[in-house]
Amino acid sequence: MASDEILVSADLLKRQLGAIFTAWGMSDEHIATTLDIMLWADLSGIDSHGAGMMQLYNRFRDQGKLSFRPEIRVVRQNPATALVDGGGGLGHVPSALAMKLACDKAAAIGVGVVAVRNSHHYGAAGAYAEMASDRGLIGISMTAVARPNVVPMFGADAMFGTNPIAFAAPAKRNPPFLLDMATSTAAFGKLTIASRVGKPIPEGWALDAGGKPVTDANEGLTHRRLTPLGTSRPMGGHKGYGLAMMVEVLCTTLGGAQYGVLREKRDPDAARHDVGHFFLAIDPTSFREDGGFEDDLDDMIDALRATRPVDPAEPVQVAGDPEVRARIERRKHGIPLSARLAQELREIAEHAGAPYLIGNGSPAP
Amino acid sequence: MASDEILVSADLLKRQLGAIFTAWGMSDEHIATTLDIMLWADLSGIDSHGAGMMQLYNRFRDQGKLSFRPEIRVVRQNPATALVDGGGGLGHVPSALAMKLACDKAAAIGVGVVAVRNSHHYGAAGAYAEMASDRGLIGISMTAVARPNVVPMFGADAMFGTNPIAFAAPAKRNPPFLLDMATSTAAFGKLTIASRVGKPIPEGWALDAGGKPVTDANEGLTHRRLTPLGTSRPMGGHKGYGLAMMVEVLCTTLGGAQYGVLREKRDPDAARHDVGHFFLAIDPTSFREDGGFEDDLDDMIDALRATRPVDPAEPVQVAGDPEVRARIERRKHGIPLSARLAQELREIAEHAGAPYLIGNGSPAP
Repeated sequence: MASDEILVSADLLKRQLGAIFTAWGMSDEHIATTLDIMLWADLSGIDSHGAGMMQLYNRFRDQGKLSFRPEIRVVRQNPATALVDGGGGLGHVPSALAMKLACDKAAAIGVGVVAVRNSHHYGAAGAYAEMASDRGLIGISMTAVARPNVVPMFGADAMFGTNPIAFAAPAKRNPPFLLDMATSTAAFGKLTIASRVGKPIPEGWALDAGGKPVTDANEGLTHRRLTPLGTSRPMGGHKGYGLAMMVEVLCTTLGGAQYGVLREKRDPDAARHDVGHFFLAIDPTSFREDGGFEDDLDDMIDALRATRPVDPAEPVQVAGDPEVRARIERRKHGIPLSARLAQELREIAEHAGAPYLIGNGSPAP
Repeated sequence: MASDEILVSADLLKRQLGAIFTAWGMSDEHIATTLDIMLWADLSGIDSHGAGMMQLYNRFRDQGKLSFRPEIRVVRQNPATALVDGGGGLGHVPSALAMKLACDKAAAIGVGVVAVRNSHHYGAAGAYAEMASDRGLIGISMTAVARPNVVPMFGADAMFGTNPIAFAAPAKRNPPFLLDMATSTAAFGKLTIASRVGKPIPEGWALDAGGKPVTDANEGLTHRRLTPLGTSRPMGGHKGYGLAMMVEVLCTTLGGAQYGVLREKRDPDAARHDVGHFFLAIDPTSFREDGGFEDDLDDMIDALRATRPVDPAEPVQVAGDPEVRARIERRKHGIPLSARLAQELREIAEHAGAPYLIGNGSPAP
């Protein structure tokens, strides 16, 4: 742990963020749901998607891009599908509702698909996928992003966001298989984190406006041109680009939300960003009479962990393992915040007229 | 085009493959469906998944791994889901049935999910996804692979196949958006093609048993250790690995098919490979009252093609563009076969007691 970090308990961080949301006018009910999902990210080690997002939420609030008293409603539904309107607020509350609907439908009829439109940043994609695996279902969660920051293969300008895919499946003796990945080579939040601690980024993550790689995190943040997963054409960059477009189609086109690039061109001053999300749940018991899904997944997970490693010091892991380890560690010792992030939260609280509760935290050991 | 290639018409290639399948005992009905899907790959420029697969089918036939008179049946279904048993034959026929079922369900209730078990190689994943977009639906097609050939991140042994994902969505003034990608850095068939024409492969595609990169295509084919999309940990190799596992869970665990690694360990002489597939269809009109899905997708496709390119000689394309171009070109001029592939087909035909119809083809221009 870096020496300029402090440790705060999940409870303290929750109260701090809650105080800010209250000052922003959010209802207690919406705050409770939003904080559950944000703290899931901070506890799981996904530092880019919990408290680390407050700076951006604060900026969008100042710009009038977010409603903090959104009217969230189910626009239409049938036994297997639904469309939810997020009312122009943050994405956490409409997304929790949408994944619950998808799971209810899957439990009843085998599969549920719910699209969300007129929403905004929803935190970590994995939080919603895990809601499904917690109910014994397979869950998929995807989201579009308000402002483009990923270039298509051969492109010099950003045309998609980091458009993440999360997938969760329930096991028995193992934690769920939980994949939560940006379809870019690296998540944009990784640049923010590198910038906060003053570290360079690997060559291949980000480009300048001429398509040349940049390794300075601040430069990367300024240019907003991440590479798609695969990075270059020979290494499959067209695949990451294709996955980003798949996510955009499911999150944006399907539910009638706005494709960010066209919204910015047509109406750069639009009152809302109108971000879309996509949720899918599948009940394995609709397919297998033997009910052996969890047992078979356990066997697969065990086999993967037992893979002969290239370097015995770096064993093969299964997606979700790092998050489980982080949760155990952070519930016990607290959530590390960089001094820079703590300072950001102090400024945001003061700006909102909310108390700053974190103080100096515990110094990192 | 390489000088040792010949050109054959789709019709001639179809008759040649059909003659072999007839000699192998396949019914005319199954041959017709299988050839439609195989020729879709050859016409679309996906040379690894059409006639190029006959060598492998021939080998599996010799090993008794394939039934050519499979009993294909719908094991169970409800209004939104179904499970199909492939009867131990090639995957094309049960998969075409499964995608049709998924589309019928989507048209009726908004979404359909169909798993296939006890099947085998199904050709190009994109052929099934496009069946959905041809009906105005979003389609997803995935498959597991009989024998592992992709290492997990940090692993020295192969634990998954190239586990492809295909996604298709219908537009109006543009061809459908059609993504068809292996979740490895490169498809295994790309190594076969490089080997047939004696070319090296890029460093990063394939490893030896010690985790070191190999650039000789034949070595790569021998070691059977492709990298996951992303290639290395800093460039996101854990994401390609995660996607491969997602595909395996949906194709294998969901429908109760066999996970290849465990089957090979538990029963290397198993009569069948028991490969699984996954199909999903979504009807956009279940979500949008305005029916604007195709219009919005057209706008997105147009915007992507108009992206400022890094190099004006390499414009930004949309997934599916190369396939559309190949189909126009190949319907007009014929399908190029390497001399080596033509020779393979001759030997397979002779081995089966089928006529060799291709002759010397037309020499490539």
